[in-house]
Amino acid sequence: MPFLEVCLTPELIKLHEVEGKTIVVTDIFRAASSMVAGLATGLSKIKPVSKVSDSEEWHKKGFLRAGERNGVKISGFELGNSPFDFMDARPVTEVVMTTTNGTKAIAVAAAASQVIIGAFLNLETVANYLKENVNRDVLVICAGWKGRFSMEDTLFAGALCQLLGERFNIENDEAYAALALYEKAKDDLYGFLKNAGHAKRLRGLDFEKDIRFCLECNRFDNLTVIDKGFIVNA
Amino acid sequence: MPFLEVCLTPELIKLHEVEGKTIVVTDIFRAASSMVAGLATGLSKIKPVSKVSDSEEWHKKGFLRAGERNGVKISGFELGNSPFDFMDARPVTEVVMTTTNGTKAIAVAAAASQVIIGAFLNLETVANYLKENVNRDVLVICAGWKGRFSMEDTLFAGALCQLLGERFNIENDEAYAALALYEKAKDDLYGFLKNAGHAKRLRGLDFEKDIRFCLECNRFDNLTVIDKGFIVNA
Repeated sequence: MPFLEVCLTPELIKLHEVEGKTIVVTDIFRAASSMVAGLATGLSKIKPVSKVSDSEEWHKKGFLRAGERNGVKISGFELGNSPFDFMDARPVTEVVMTTTNGTKAIAVAAAASQVIIGAFLNLETVANYLKENVNRDVLVICAGWKGRFSMEDTLFAGALCQLLGERFNIENDEAYAALALYEKAKDDLYGFLKNAGHAKRLRGLDFEKDIRFCLECNRFDNLTVIDKGFIVNA
Repeated sequence: MPFLEVCLTPELIKLHEVEGKTIVVTDIFRAASSMVAGLATGLSKIKPVSKVSDSEEWHKKGFLRAGERNGVKISGFELGNSPFDFMDARPVTEVVMTTTNGTKAIAVAAAASQVIIGAFLNLETVANYLKENVNRDVLVICAGWKGRFSMEDTLFAGALCQLLGERFNIENDEAYAALALYEKAKDDLYGFLKNAGHAKRLRGLDFEKDIRFCLECNRFDNLTVIDKGFIVNA
């Protein structure tokens, strides 16, 4: 049986094998959720870049610029990091995006055989795809917050562990912890997260609506992947 | 109210402030537990060193050499890393010790104002000391396993969070996760940990007795600290 492992923050990626694996990158608040929501509702592709300055060449090609630093929309950009921004981007369907944590987590996954973007919004679609199509080891990379552990990303990893426990070995302590936390939180993700750091930061920035939206399970059924450097629907 | 934070592995220490804090280092399986047990039952001091070769100068001064690599006693050393070894060291009362994870976690705590060694064996003593005597921020450093998250150390951090929640701010996601995991595990630490990686590794090495011993709460009441480079009773 292949393994399902969890990397709690990109800072710890050097302690995990990436090569040859299927990677699921998550960043619940909000990059991964926004990517899934945007691609589910009309976007055709999203180019993730790490630096603000890297977005300009894509903007010249007609891409809308999306991104935040410390949760706040980057000055001059057309879109922030809210899923509602991503769902309102049309008629433009191409977006270039840079975020504090999410696009960095994507960059560390570069050596993998396959990279999927996962969120609660398409949880079952990701789980079903892994269950039915993937026979190699899977590594879930939590984007975290500035290198640190974040609760919401770990809960998403735990949700995958719960759905995939019969098809994958859930054996390392990180996965076991993620699963235990998810089991404790699953009946009220919002309530469990209300004291978590990132939700508090976003609430301080008046993103209550975003928080609730990002915690909706299975609202969309698109499988979001990285293909030749772009985030697209599979 | 001062903060109680948790650093999940020494690999993440650069994301936390150490200076000016009281640090609690834990390594439940088994360095911290062995230190507490040894000092509770007759040892006078333990010198932690990171490298095997550093132990020789202390051995020449009469210290017993203790330590493991990958859970196995270092060849030629008088003691391994079992609490039972540490409780059987007399008539010699001085030990020099090097372990895979524990002594490294101690080394990263060097810039702190105060370093305490904590284990389930002296949980209440550590908690009471912090409650009654410490008004600065506290950081619990989990030794982990080769840089990675470990469940048993995180559970100990969670136990401290539970006992200290009224005197310290338990606000960062790591502490909140540790507390939630401990609440789930506390009625049967042994059962909860039976699938955890490190317990499995030790069981594979036939240290079942050590595992059960290291999970006993409040067997001893000595406060174990670092003073001028030695681990001693306060």
